[in-house]
Amino acid sequence: MPNFPEPIERAIKEIAKLPGIGKKSALRIVYFLLKEDYSSVEALESAISALKNNIEMCPKCRGYKEKTENCSICSDPKRDRSTLCIVESTQDMHLIDSSAGFKGSYFVLHGLLSPVKGVNPESLKLEELIRRIEEDNITEVIIATPYTAEGEATASFVISLLEKTEAKISRIGMGVPIGSELSYIDSETLSRALALRREIK
Amino acid sequence: MPNFPEPIERAIKEIAKLPGIGKKSALRIVYFLLKEDYSSVEALESAISALKNNIEMCPKCRGYKEKTENCSICSDPKRDRSTLCIVESTQDMHLIDSSAGFKGSYFVLHGLLSPVKGVNPESLKLEELIRRIEEDNITEVIIATPYTAEGEATASFVISLLEKTEAKISRIGMGVPIGSELSYIDSETLSRALALRREIK
Repeated sequence: MPNFPEPIERAIKEIAKLPGIGKKSALRIVYFLLKEDYSSVEALESAISALKNNIEMCPKCRGYKEKTENCSICSDPKRDRSTLCIVESTQDMHLIDSSAGFKGSYFVLHGLLSPVKGVNPESLKLEELIRRIEEDNITEVIIATPYTAEGEATASFVISLLEKTEAKISRIGMGVPIGSELSYIDSETLSRALALRREIK
Repeated sequence: MPNFPEPIERAIKEIAKLPGIGKKSALRIVYFLLKEDYSSVEALESAISALKNNIEMCPKCRGYKEKTENCSICSDPKRDRSTLCIVESTQDMHLIDSSAGFKGSYFVLHGLLSPVKGVNPESLKLEELIRRIEEDNITEVIIATPYTAEGEATASFVISLLEKTEAKISRIGMGVPIGSELSYIDSETLSRALALRREIK
């Protein structure tokens, strides 16, 4: 690579830290920004800055909310507050919520148990989860962590913690996704999907 | 999509304007930034801001240079200043320069002639190009615009303008790229590559 002027090198380095963006895409973005109006670039900067200054974690669901506003999910009177869905991330919360199959409340773990990555029950605030379930009289808990090693370990741990509560516990369904050819599905999923078959008649 | 808090919506909108980034990638970047330290996000903001504040166009080659510094290409004493390579963009300039096959000087057009997009000879600063060739006693001009309709039209126009100058003019080679199977090459390129064959013996 030739030497770019220092501000260009620095911008490439910072932009390439973003997820899904390599050095080549960062360079493309830098050239794009250099050609943009001053005001468009300022709009981008101020939007990034507002993320850090105006967004905080909701103490209840641990999703993100605007500092000056109530959490749009926790304060929504139309939601079923006795049902709680436990998810790995805010992304997953929005995915589940936009699929419209579920309109209850949420708890975001912001991670999955992983001894390798140093993620333990304290980092996931599992005590807060238990307190919330007790205080809010949650009667049904759906564990929606993924079917990965870490997602399964987290689910098992949460289930063991919840045994002492009164709440009903379930795990999201597992099987073959809609629209997928069976040949694209791994054999482990297929055999579990067979074992978990639904009776029709 | 569910309603995100306003600062998140705004950041998604601004980030999704960047090239190669759709709404999903923008959302991923926003979640990444929300989890980052304050200082890392500030480093990104300040790097973006420095792009607009500390970078300007070099009046000679029309590449980008730091405002307080000389252009690293135009002020490099090791370069052959009698040879000038004409390129569409600063990206192309850096590509050609890093391929190390050429260590002369450059002129960046920042576009290609296109009546449809309203790009005319004035937008490409072709008068400046002619003036530069005359003032700097350029003896050889290499036109490195791509072999697209607009790249070819621009090359033809530049060639017609340069006919009155003393400079030798050439066009970058055209043919089959190294490492590419012939089956991936379009037939137009193949037939031109045959017509432009080099004699070996």
